[in-house]
Amino acid sequence: MSAHPRLSLNQATIKHATLDEALQVTAEAGYQAIGLWREPVAELGLEQAARRLGSSGLRFTSLCRAGFFTMPEGPERRASIDDNRRAIEETATLAAAGAPGSTAVLVLVAGGIPAGSSDLIGARARVADALAELAPDAEAGGVQLAIEPLHPMYVSDRAVVSTLKQALDLAAPFAPEVVGVEVDTFHVWWDPEALDQIARAGREGRIASYQVCDWKAPLPADVLLARHYPGDGVVDFASFTEAVEATGYDRDIEVELFNAEIWATPFAEVADRTAASFDAVVAPHLAKAPATSSALSRGA
Amino acid sequence: MSAHPRLSLNQATIKHATLDEALQVTAEAGYQAIGLWREPVAELGLEQAARRLGSSGLRFTSLCRAGFFTMPEGPERRASIDDNRRAIEETATLAAAGAPGSTAVLVLVAGGIPAGSSDLIGARARVADALAELAPDAEAGGVQLAIEPLHPMYVSDRAVVSTLKQALDLAAPFAPEVVGVEVDTFHVWWDPEALDQIARAGREGRIASYQVCDWKAPLPADVLLARHYPGDGVVDFASFTEAVEATGYDRDIEVELFNAEIWATPFAEVADRTAASFDAVVAPHLAKAPATSSALSRGA
Repeated sequence: MSAHPRLSLNQATIKHATLDEALQVTAEAGYQAIGLWREPVAELGLEQAARRLGSSGLRFTSLCRAGFFTMPEGPERRASIDDNRRAIEETATLAAAGAPGSTAVLVLVAGGIPAGSSDLIGARARVADALAELAPDAEAGGVQLAIEPLHPMYVSDRAVVSTLKQALDLAAPFAPEVVGVEVDTFHVWWDPEALDQIARAGREGRIASYQVCDWKAPLPADVLLARHYPGDGVVDFASFTEAVEATGYDRDIEVELFNAEIWATPFAEVADRTAASFDAVVAPHLAKAPATSSALSRGA
Repeated sequence: MSAHPRLSLNQATIKHATLDEALQVTAEAGYQAIGLWREPVAELGLEQAARRLGSSGLRFTSLCRAGFFTMPEGPERRASIDDNRRAIEETATLAAAGAPGSTAVLVLVAGGIPAGSSDLIGARARVADALAELAPDAEAGGVQLAIEPLHPMYVSDRAVVSTLKQALDLAAPFAPEVVGVEVDTFHVWWDPEALDQIARAGREGRIASYQVCDWKAPLPADVLLARHYPGDGVVDFASFTEAVEATGYDRDIEVELFNAEIWATPFAEVADRTAASFDAVVAPHLAKAPATSSALSRGA
């Protein structure tokens, strides 16, 4: 099997795989890159996980995920900041263990409105505070924090950052190699300003990661599991991919699918289907079709 | 029973009531105003419906709904434009039949992306075309079209207009008394630019209607039915209501709830509960508490 040289399989797409299984399936399906999640890494232990990643020969494209720091000051917030610091270390370790061209990107999901509160504006302000606290650690570790705006249907319980504009405004006080943004088509495709904000993100050098994933109505009962293979829904991958590529983005591109049906499908089948959907609707819009050399030109 | 003098019960909140039942329940619960839906009006026939509304003594605050004009040119689009013209006539007739202070507002829901298409930008452009076609009819009928941005989770199948900014940009070519916007807290509360856009809408004289409705996670299996009584969720009604009032908005305020549990509750109980929730979390933030005289100062 083969996969596009710039395609990275985000581990959540084969959620029930262990890290070993995920690395094996991804490599055997012909991918050159993988995005990891913290839980399966923790199951093995960071050191062991880094060793397995190194043996796989795969590039490491991002670690999902940290963040969740919208709560007011207190022990819960301190625990969250500490956890984010650990995630920064994990990211640095994994990026160093991955194949050349790995990117030390840590995805941040802001967190929702604290229970019992209706202060959305205050919760957003605390995201800015947390970034200010974590940026020095990220910089010291050579890690780029990627603020991920989530679709506005998740704003109350998961992420008070809903648009690329917001994410870029939050990132603005920091150096772009320390705080960037994640562009996930599933979350931002509806936004009338998305293409303009992608161009802005490019000018500001802040596209840490580009993820492709499709949207389809009706939404499933659990709206967290609404993500589809590229091409199965209504997202205009031509416009988004061309906009991202036009900024000079040359990193790997992840596919991350939360979907109960996909999770119930054999891992290898999912990896192949993901690669085929990427070839069909994303690859034709990449600036340079076989961009391996370009992706490799970036250091970890 | 009594209800705040500026509170209007949108008929969808008691969806299973006939028009007669809705008028009776609303008046008996002490409301002075009601927002109607086209289907129950059509059941009785427009003329008969207008007569019953007149007899009820209630102000008419809006007709829901028309729009759904994102399809490309062809018979289906012509049928939609014709239907919108009928809705404009219905609105004018009902506003004239309602008590003094009625407002001739027709709510427009844009419609989703046509089946088989992924051209969101094109669908949005066709909304602008439809408005240009309908504005002369609205003007002639003395009807204000209210573009309603819907929450981005409905963008693919229901409304390609997702933000107040978009709605105001679409309204910009037209006189404000012909094309305005609907501000529904449920749809716009998440938007980091919502309060600024409410201020802009005020400056431009375009707030046709203000609706209050709450948001709560998790969303139900059918995300269309996710609307809650004000105060039951996380929306900051103080900020929104004060922002709307600061623009000089002095019309009635509707509560429109799509919610299976509420629809299964006796109508009178729903009307009372709605009035109580409005009193608790919206009324305290109105510029002038008993604003009947102000509302009455506007003609239909």
